[in-house]
Amino acid sequence: MAGNTYGQIFKITSFGESHGMGIGVVIDGCPAGLPIDLEFIQSELSRRKPGQSRVTTQRKEEDTYVIQSGVFEGVTTGTPISIYIKNKDQKSKDYSHIAESFRPSHADMTYQEKYGHRDYRGGGRSSARETAARVAAGAIAKIFLKKKGISIHAGVTQVGPIKLEQDIQTIDWSNVEKNIVRCPNSKVAEQMEEYIMSVRKEGDTVGGLIGCIINDCPIGLGEPVFDKLHAELAKAMMSINAVKGFEYGSGFNAINMKGSDHNDLWKNIDGKKTTASNFSGGIQGGISNGMPIYFNVAFKPVATIMKDQDSITNIGEKTTVVGKGRHDPCVVPRAVPIVEAMAALVIADFYLRLQTDKL
Amino acid sequence: MAGNTYGQIFKITSFGESHGMGIGVVIDGCPAGLPIDLEFIQSELSRRKPGQSRVTTQRKEEDTYVIQSGVFEGVTTGTPISIYIKNKDQKSKDYSHIAESFRPSHADMTYQEKYGHRDYRGGGRSSARETAARVAAGAIAKIFLKKKGISIHAGVTQVGPIKLEQDIQTIDWSNVEKNIVRCPNSKVAEQMEEYIMSVRKEGDTVGGLIGCIINDCPIGLGEPVFDKLHAELAKAMMSINAVKGFEYGSGFNAINMKGSDHNDLWKNIDGKKTTASNFSGGIQGGISNGMPIYFNVAFKPVATIMKDQDSITNIGEKTTVVGKGRHDPCVVPRAVPIVEAMAALVIADFYLRLQTDKL
Amino acid sequence: MAGNTYGQIFKITSFGESHGMGIGVVIDGCPAGLPIDLEFIQSELSRRKPGQSRVTTQRKEEDTYVIQSGVFEGVTTGTPISIYIKNKDQKSKDYSHIAESFRPSHADMTYQEKYGHRDYRGGGRSSARETAARVAAGAIAKIFLKKKGISIHAGVTQVGPIKLEQDIQTIDWSNVEKNIVRCPNSKVAEQMEEYIMSVRKEGDTVGGLIGCIINDCPIGLGEPVFDKLHAELAKAMMSINAVKGFEYGSGFNAINMKGSDHNDLWKNIDGKKTTASNFSGGIQGGISNGMPIYFNVAFKPVATIMKDQDSITNIGEKTTVVGKGRHDPCVVPRAVPIVEAMAALVIADFYLRLQTDKL
Amino acid sequence: MAGNTYGQIFKITSFGESHGMGIGVVIDGCPAGLPIDLEFIQSELSRRKPGQSRVTTQRKEEDTYVIQSGVFEGVTTGTPISIYIKNKDQKSKDYSHIAESFRPSHADMTYQEKYGHRDYRGGGRSSARETAARVAAGAIAKIFLKKKGISIHAGVTQVGPIKLEQDIQTIDWSNVEKNIVRCPNSKVAEQMEEYIMSVRKEGDTVGGLIGCIINDCPIGLGEPVFDKLHAELAKAMMSINAVKGFEYGSGFNAINMKGSDHNDLWKNIDGKKTTASNFSGGIQGGISNGMPIYFNVAFKPVATIMKDQDSITNIGEKTTVVGKGRHDPCVVPRAVPIVEAMAALVIADFYLRLQTDKL
Repeated sequence: MAGNTYGQIFKITSFGESHGMGIGVVIDGCPAGLPIDLEFIQSELSRRKPGQSRVTTQRKEEDTYVIQSGVFEGVTTGTPISIYIKNKDQKSKDYSHIAESFRPSHADMTYQEKYGHRDYRGGGRSSARETAARVAAGAIAKIFLKKKGISIHAGVTQVGPIKLEQDIQTIDWSNVEKNIVRCPNSKVAEQMEEYIMSVRKEGDTVGGLIGCIINDCPIGLGEPVFDKLHAELAKAMMSINAVKGFEYGSGFNAINMKGSDHNDLWKNIDGKKTTASNFSGGIQGGISNGMPIYFNVAFKPVATIMKDQDSITNIGEKTTVVGKGRHDPCVVPRAVPIVEAMAALVIADFYLRLQTDKL
Repeated sequence: MAGNTYGQIFKITSFGESHGMGIGVVIDGCPAGLPIDLEFIQSELSRRKPGQSRVTTQRKEEDTYVIQSGVFEGVTTGTPISIYIKNKDQKSKDYSHIAESFRPSHADMTYQEKYGHRDYRGGGRSSARETAARVAAGAIAKIFLKKKGISIHAGVTQVGPIKLEQDIQTIDWSNVEKNIVRCPNSKVAEQMEEYIMSVRKEGDTVGGLIGCIINDCPIGLGEPVFDKLHAELAKAMMSINAVKGFEYGSGFNAINMKGSDHNDLWKNIDGKKTTASNFSGGIQGGISNGMPIYFNVAFKPVATIMKDQDSITNIGEKTTVVGKGRHDPCVVPRAVPIVEAMAALVIADFYLRLQTDKL
Repeated sequence: MAGNTYGQIFKITSFGESHGMGIGVVIDGCPAGLPIDLEFIQSELSRRKPGQSRVTTQRKEEDTYVIQSGVFEGVTTGTPISIYIKNKDQKSKDYSHIAESFRPSHADMTYQEKYGHRDYRGGGRSSARETAARVAAGAIAKIFLKKKGISIHAGVTQVGPIKLEQDIQTIDWSNVEKNIVRCPNSKVAEQMEEYIMSVRKEGDTVGGLIGCIINDCPIGLGEPVFDKLHAELAKAMMSINAVKGFEYGSGFNAINMKGSDHNDLWKNIDGKKTTASNFSGGIQGGISNGMPIYFNVAFKPVATIMKDQDSITNIGEKTTVVGKGRHDPCVVPRAVPIVEAMAALVIADFYLRLQTDKL
Repeated sequence: MAGNTYGQIFKITSFGESHGMGIGVVIDGCPAGLPIDLEFIQSELSRRKPGQSRVTTQRKEEDTYVIQSGVFEGVTTGTPISIYIKNKDQKSKDYSHIAESFRPSHADMTYQEKYGHRDYRGGGRSSARETAARVAAGAIAKIFLKKKGISIHAGVTQVGPIKLEQDIQTIDWSNVEKNIVRCPNSKVAEQMEEYIMSVRKEGDTVGGLIGCIINDCPIGLGEPVFDKLHAELAKAMMSINAVKGFEYGSGFNAINMKGSDHNDLWKNIDGKKTTASNFSGGIQGGISNGMPIYFNVAFKPVATIMKDQDSITNIGEKTTVVGKGRHDPCVVPRAVPIVEAMAALVIADFYLRLQTDKL
């Protein structure tokens, strides 16, 4: 039973392969009456597109899109919105060498065994190229959330050993798009860029961390007991390629804290119910409490490296996976809009779910 | 739109409140023909029940259960299995002092604002008492998985600063039930117990970490692209009360690693496709690869403490939440069976989902 | 993959068997803040309960219920509402004779083959006793709809050859509960009752028709393209035991009509958009148009008869199914509240779904 | 909450409008390893396409399609299959006259009020042009079912007063494609064709009936209690444009029958469990019993007629809807492949659901 649909009310279904005809997404459940900013969708796709800088893969895709349905005279009609992005720079010959080999820490083996038949070209469906669909759908979700006054910001806070030491709640997000690493601090960004370039030179790759904050959510987003807001955020983030960990609010640091330090005391500040601290990360009992929601997402180093690696074939024979092809030395700069997109999809869905919870 | 159901095929719906009549769960989609071990279900519930040791809450609940449907002559019939656990030691007078106050870092405020009307007794639906339903359903899932040769083990690997330094893949799990903290190492368990008791004496609480491993899964569990195995595990774990973070395989440590170190090289060992290392945590492209699946779950310190705390009321007036009532000084010892139960539910569901993926 | 849950937002999960401990239902997604009229729920259950008159089965069940969760101080809290109805007059010995035989036109054979193991007592899960769960949940839905000004009426319009010849839109529904057949016309009701009693005397059974009307729905209920309002009504009605056909508006008669006769012309009557005729049955393009919604549901004769019938056993050997046991000679009188309950569940669900369709 | 997805495991999401760019469908959950017969898909689309004969609309669409994903080297990969059909002969100017008017018995008014904004061109999303998506997806389902030995046949059995008087179980289906009405009897087909042409000449339209049979299903398709096989068939059929009624097996005629006549007695015929009669329509307790499954679907006369009709505008002012545009005088000839497609989707889905019901 497949899993290419996300969301309960604001629901997206993604399709397409890395080296097939294209990537697409159908959004079902976007409310009618929403004016669609076509340039904004393109700008979001461009933040994710390959070949955008020297710290990303050199595959060239403009990632221009077309809306095939659901928008009439610039405004959503309540019917499914289908967005399609053609693949252009497929070069599928590049991948013939892995048709019958399993690249280490890729999905080649698991797809082969699960399905018995796979599109091996560039990883097929398992490629992060699929995330273009998420970014396109996420752009629609962002347009919706903007109408509701909600904003989402993400940025790179760590690349390998280079770390931005700053409380995520105090970050000035306006800097993120000013450097190619998408770190909110330009000094640290420079170090990160330098580090990524040195790793690339080695033919190697490196992991990183993305922090994300969601501001001005209404109280009440998230549903007890299984569909807690942070549980859905976790699922959404963990579903992004290369993600290995998720934490919100105090996160893993909560282990070391005592309750008396960790508890966020309630205050009435100018008639607004506010917590003095925010270790809860804006979520209590799985439901947004009106404070900023923030979380971290950990990414592993990209599995494609420019080094030869021992491996086996479909039928278990020894082989060598040769280090070639185009790839990202570090995935996090391009993953920033993906994290934002998935966050937007989660929040938009819960925003709509909230509308039916109370008489 | 509520969220009290979990799973796609092996599907559970949980109900009940901390101080209502009882807690229950309906399991729909458990395959017919499964013999049910009634004592095993009780033993699982007993691992979670309150009052089981000096490091847990002193609320006394035997947590005996009754199967109301779906099992005939000891065997599942394919119809919904309803399990019900009566509440006995409710003492709801204990909670009248918070009927109109918001306990810090509890769900009182968010439930109040979301629903306009809440069962404030012991947190009502937001109480971790609800997890009894998960453990009961998880026991059925475990019985199913055992038939399929799959085993699940969890244990406490950190309490506050006390940490078990050991690769989770090398742990001997037979020790877990031999100490009241449920740490697989008896020496470390003693230190943890001591620490918890000292924190309890202060009227305070502390967080912790649980590690979990799933062995002998078939290849193919998990579904691209949104329903990746680790994404569902993340959601399932994050939906447990007090959880703040999730990581699988290399987890957050992956940030610091290079691809050439992190990649798990394929070997053919005695005809079995095996990886030399297992930073992938048994999952590649969101799909199990036959290696052990392992992950960590971080818990915050319990919000109920024995100290007075400043807060506000429903209508925003200043108040003091008095430190009284029964609670756990550290949640992780009782959370071990809950983590296992949620893991079992995730795996059972994907096991069934896998049956339809290939012709 | 089981199917014991109905609804998308106002969602019910039913459980229990005819001769097990009881029948229950969990309602997830009922909005918080709804005052629950406990007596109304009982009165609905009593309309469906067995043994209520001489035209029904003589099994005696009071069908008293208990609400186990989700209602606090008489008002819904937004958490799952669990309702449980104990079985009392099970007499399961009555059914030992069919433990290994297939009753004709019952579900014995299909359950046996599908699941390999079945609760044969009184049909187990396939028994219409399950509909008690629907009526209980439907009562909650009706309470919700009443708040929204929506009313639902059903009645028996045919039993065997005895037919009420009247446009369903002109019926006075206040008579339905005044006779044991639940026909809105007392004269016709008498004939129906007489007919049913004569059939009962023969040890036989007979089918019937129920008409249902839903008044004062807002415009907009129902969703293109698969979840059309009448498509969901059809599914909900066809899911009731013994139902063989469904039609709405002009129904099967539409086959013989021409478009120029069948089209409902729009008028503006006192500022309200109204159709001159209503062959559309209040639904256009799958969406309610504000006019009365009406439909018919056809029931087959009950399969349990007081005559011996040739059949086979589990393993295909010839046998005779002896005509004994308690049963209804005609199912429609007791099915009236079930039809209403399912209609209420459909409408409540679409009412909530509508809340998210427009910005 | 929108409803453009159908199915639980074999799941389709449809998108597109009558006069937009095109119509498409994403199939998620089709098992991997299925060889796809591209010509068969085209032949199915051609059976539905407009302009195919003189009894259909004169809109010209070749309805050629492209598979955008999910099929590699001619075989399904288990990833979403996206099929796209471009619109060519849109002529959207034809529809400007109804931009602000409500056509009688169309969905113009309900879409306008539900969404506040609608694509009025040719009915937009409410147009039966959407069914091209269903036929494309249904073709994939048919390919899957053929592998499993299951066949589906439908044909026109009534047009206005012209009726084929024959038990659907005795029909020779090979004649259906030999006449433009798609009636299995060529004599009756001639009368139907003549009748349709006479109605067309009047500028009017007429309804009809389609019968459908599904042969060689395994025992066990369909799920208690809400997802009964016939309940899903009813929903699927009722979701087709212009359908007003559904019945299976004995259908509405069951009302007049007695249990002793209606019951299908079990026989063991050559080791196969068989019923002597088949009033059950191959389904008992909502589950297929191995006998032929058959049902009828009633269609209303098409709402677009070549006559002027009184109506109102968006804002309730009187207007006249002029009788022009292209349309079908009778919808049933083109609806035959749509009925088959929806039946195939239902059966394929239940076939997969069945795989997880028993240990």
